[in-house]
Amino acid sequence: MNYKMMGRFIGLILMVEAVFMIPAGIISLCYGEYNAMWSFWAAMATCLLVAAVLLLLCKGAPSAFYAKEGLVCVGLSWIVLSLFGCLPFFFSREIPNFIDAFFEIVSGFTTTGSSVVANVEGLSHGVIYWRSFSNWLGGMGVLVFLLAFTGAKGSGFTMHLLRAESPGPNVGKLVPKMRTTATILYVIYFVMTVINFLFLLAGRMSVFEAVCTAMSTAGTGGFGIKNDSFTSFSPYIQTVTTVFMLLFAVNFSCYYLLLMGQFKAVFKDEELRLFVIIIFGSIGLLVLNIRPLYGTLEEAIRHAAFQVATLVSSTGFASTDFDLWPAFSKAILMCIMVVGACAGSTGGGLKVARLLLICKSLRRNIRKTLNPQKVQVIRNNEAVVNEQILENTNSYLAAYALILFISFVLVSIDGFNVETNFSAVLSCFNNMGPGFAAVGPTCNFSGYSSFSKIILILDMFLGRLEIFPILVLFSRSTWKR
Amino acid sequence: MNYKMMGRFIGLILMVEAVFMIPAGIISLCYGEYNAMWSFWAAMATCLLVAAVLLLLCKGAPSAFYAKEGLVCVGLSWIVLSLFGCLPFFFSREIPNFIDAFFEIVSGFTTTGSSVVANVEGLSHGVIYWRSFSNWLGGMGVLVFLLAFTGAKGSGFTMHLLRAESPGPNVGKLVPKMRTTATILYVIYFVMTVINFLFLLAGRMSVFEAVCTAMSTAGTGGFGIKNDSFTSFSPYIQTVTTVFMLLFAVNFSCYYLLLMGQFKAVFKDEELRLFVIIIFGSIGLLVLNIRPLYGTLEEAIRHAAFQVATLVSSTGFASTDFDLWPAFSKAILMCIMVVGACAGSTGGGLKVARLLLICKSLRRNIRKTLNPQKVQVIRNNEAVVNEQILENTNSYLAAYALILFISFVLVSIDGFNVETNFSAVLSCFNNMGPGFAAVGPTCNFSGYSSFSKIILILDMFLGRLEIFPILVLFSRSTWKR
Repeated sequence: MNYKMMGRFIGLILMVEAVFMIPAGIISLCYGEYNAMWSFWAAMATCLLVAAVLLLLCKGAPSAFYAKEGLVCVGLSWIVLSLFGCLPFFFSREIPNFIDAFFEIVSGFTTTGSSVVANVEGLSHGVIYWRSFSNWLGGMGVLVFLLAFTGAKGSGFTMHLLRAESPGPNVGKLVPKMRTTATILYVIYFVMTVINFLFLLAGRMSVFEAVCTAMSTAGTGGFGIKNDSFTSFSPYIQTVTTVFMLLFAVNFSCYYLLLMGQFKAVFKDEELRLFVIIIFGSIGLLVLNIRPLYGTLEEAIRHAAFQVATLVSSTGFASTDFDLWPAFSKAILMCIMVVGACAGSTGGGLKVARLLLICKSLRRNIRKTLNPQKVQVIRNNEAVVNEQILENTNSYLAAYALILFISFVLVSIDGFNVETNFSAVLSCFNNMGPGFAAVGPTCNFSGYSSFSKIILILDMFLGRLEIFPILVLFSRSTWKR
Repeated sequence: MNYKMMGRFIGLILMVEAVFMIPAGIISLCYGEYNAMWSFWAAMATCLLVAAVLLLLCKGAPSAFYAKEGLVCVGLSWIVLSLFGCLPFFFSREIPNFIDAFFEIVSGFTTTGSSVVANVEGLSHGVIYWRSFSNWLGGMGVLVFLLAFTGAKGSGFTMHLLRAESPGPNVGKLVPKMRTTATILYVIYFVMTVINFLFLLAGRMSVFEAVCTAMSTAGTGGFGIKNDSFTSFSPYIQTVTTVFMLLFAVNFSCYYLLLMGQFKAVFKDEELRLFVIIIFGSIGLLVLNIRPLYGTLEEAIRHAAFQVATLVSSTGFASTDFDLWPAFSKAILMCIMVVGACAGSTGGGLKVARLLLICKSLRRNIRKTLNPQKVQVIRNNEAVVNEQILENTNSYLAAYALILFISFVLVSIDGFNVETNFSAVLSCFNNMGPGFAAVGPTCNFSGYSSFSKIILILDMFLGRLEIFPILVLFSRSTWKR
């Protein structure tokens, strides 16, 4: 293991995190919230101090870097980022328990959006901004950011990082240079966030509210600024957010292709097509099911579309208490929760691309049983899919199921009912936000014990980094020389 | 497709089914239940009539037979067997609704044991016997029976059948000849059932009760003879049944190896070891969790062991209402429900052997990520596992998860709560029996609509025949010339 290089890298991340805290500190100052302000400066100082020590200790690192170290590096970076990112919450005593503060920031960076805070409106502006910003940064990924704008060196190195941090079964480069790819992604991301912000402003939101909401939406994170999430916002704001949640759940390479004028490739993209079918299909079924609950058809469609958008993109806002919906609607919502967004988006879940591969590989298996002699390949967008990717996808599903069940059992120790526990785990693991019953959209996760919170924190990391970068941290063969 | 041979085969099965109904008819006669008796004779006559027509129509079938036809044949046989097997329930009006009667017999043959009958004690003796017998026959498989005792010809043919009907990722022959393997399996099965029967007799059960209970236990089916399942039976009967449920959940090839004196091979069997660990581990955890609910430690251990045995073997008896247990216990029970029994046993579920392969293949995948260059094979009991079997296992898991979610959504239309729906699907799909909440051990499935019952019937077939023989029936490429 190239410990020195990893140390340097983590030092770099802490420096960047300190810089990111500056706006939060300034916002606290502007609103005259001195307690929060000092917490941000103190957290910044801590980050810089540790960063300085790490950079000093790890001078002159060799530049050789392997896949294994890339994975470990990604896993560790996210944990360190969160450990230091929760300091402002903790120092300001706005979240006085450290595990709670850690849970909150992990939920932010992993774009889960599950909260332990019952009264969000009671938080200071700086803290609210920092929560929403963590959603935004976590959405596209902090390492991708580092790659795009600070220019971490080493070509193999950057490839490993991007691969480990970006969601989906198969990370493609948009352009031959990895760093340019990362920059393009972040620029698209930034511009779309700004457009979302402008639309929200047009709906007469305040600038502060619009910034926070746009960032949480863009990262498909789901940290809201109101206690009732989106329930009290106007239909216009709800609709705008519905549209943008869906836009951010689409593979970003589609936008790049659109910019390059390759409309046909986007139109023919199999993942996008399936995604659109899933969205309209589930909205249709939900409307049929919940129509009697709402006064007008418009209202039923709006709430159905909002909830589908929020759960399929793994954002986790709520425009209504969907925990009160009928069982059929809840079942559909649970399914789209698991399927999740497109690969290469900011959304969570299993990813539509994986579902597609799993179904195709299942179909091949049935055909193989019927005609054992025939050799068959699997194609995606007309290109043959590498068998290694198929194997990884199947392995991913197996790991997904195992982790889901183990977490479910461990979280059950707290004694909540089956629906609460199962949806809590599902929600954290898919980086969703709210679950059902006692962790439903009108409730929060503060009732769980510290032990369960740690399990759920692990689940959030596992979900955001797609299992393997975290799993390798627990593998013996990672650490042996 | 070799339709003629398939027709002949199904005719043969109907003939055998008619023969199997004779004891039920005689029992009805002995107890003076003439209504039930006439229903059995009428059902027998129907079977024989259809069988005769089929055998006449399909004379002179060519003997060539392919894997595809084997699969289709297995799927169709089970459906036909159930369609005719439910006639006695329907004719006697003891289960007046045809869908209900069909549900009941499918639940019997697939060894699920979910019932739509609220008052089991109100059924006639012949019908109770027929329910228990369906558990027994379904446990080891009707085609295996046919193979062993009527000598269906064609070597490739029999191999395909056995492979499709026997549970587990990899069906091994015990001896070079398939027919001898089938005979050995059935003889072991029969002898163990008799021993179980004798132990029950020693606990002062009546002969009729002991026969029915032994058959339901042996098939790990779970059709009981009392309304309260095993709650009112003596601790002795409960303990005997616990032990036998576990014994029938072990791979039968282990018993063959024991008979051959190969103790070391049995002792070293990885699947058996994991199975034992799962059993004792979950009993231990349950006892810790439910100790306060029971007066004595003995009682807590007895109930924990009984429930673990009944769910891990997918039998579905209950010695206590485990729906009232704490959430942690319920979570553990759900997990062992999914894992299920050993491959090559009469139990259901995913199978321990598959879990083992899935975990090993996951571990290999992690290692591969760390060292992409290294070629690694997966071993089971020291033998290298064929990559095709690994692929099939992964595919199986994918199909399992997909079917689980689709059924869950469809069953949710009825509007029961999430826990009820999810555990109902899980229970039917794993051939378990009871679920939780509204389908818990003290309840039954009669509340579901006919549509949901059909979904659950399909799930039971899919679970018992391990998905593919049923799935191919719905594949277009099966039926095209």
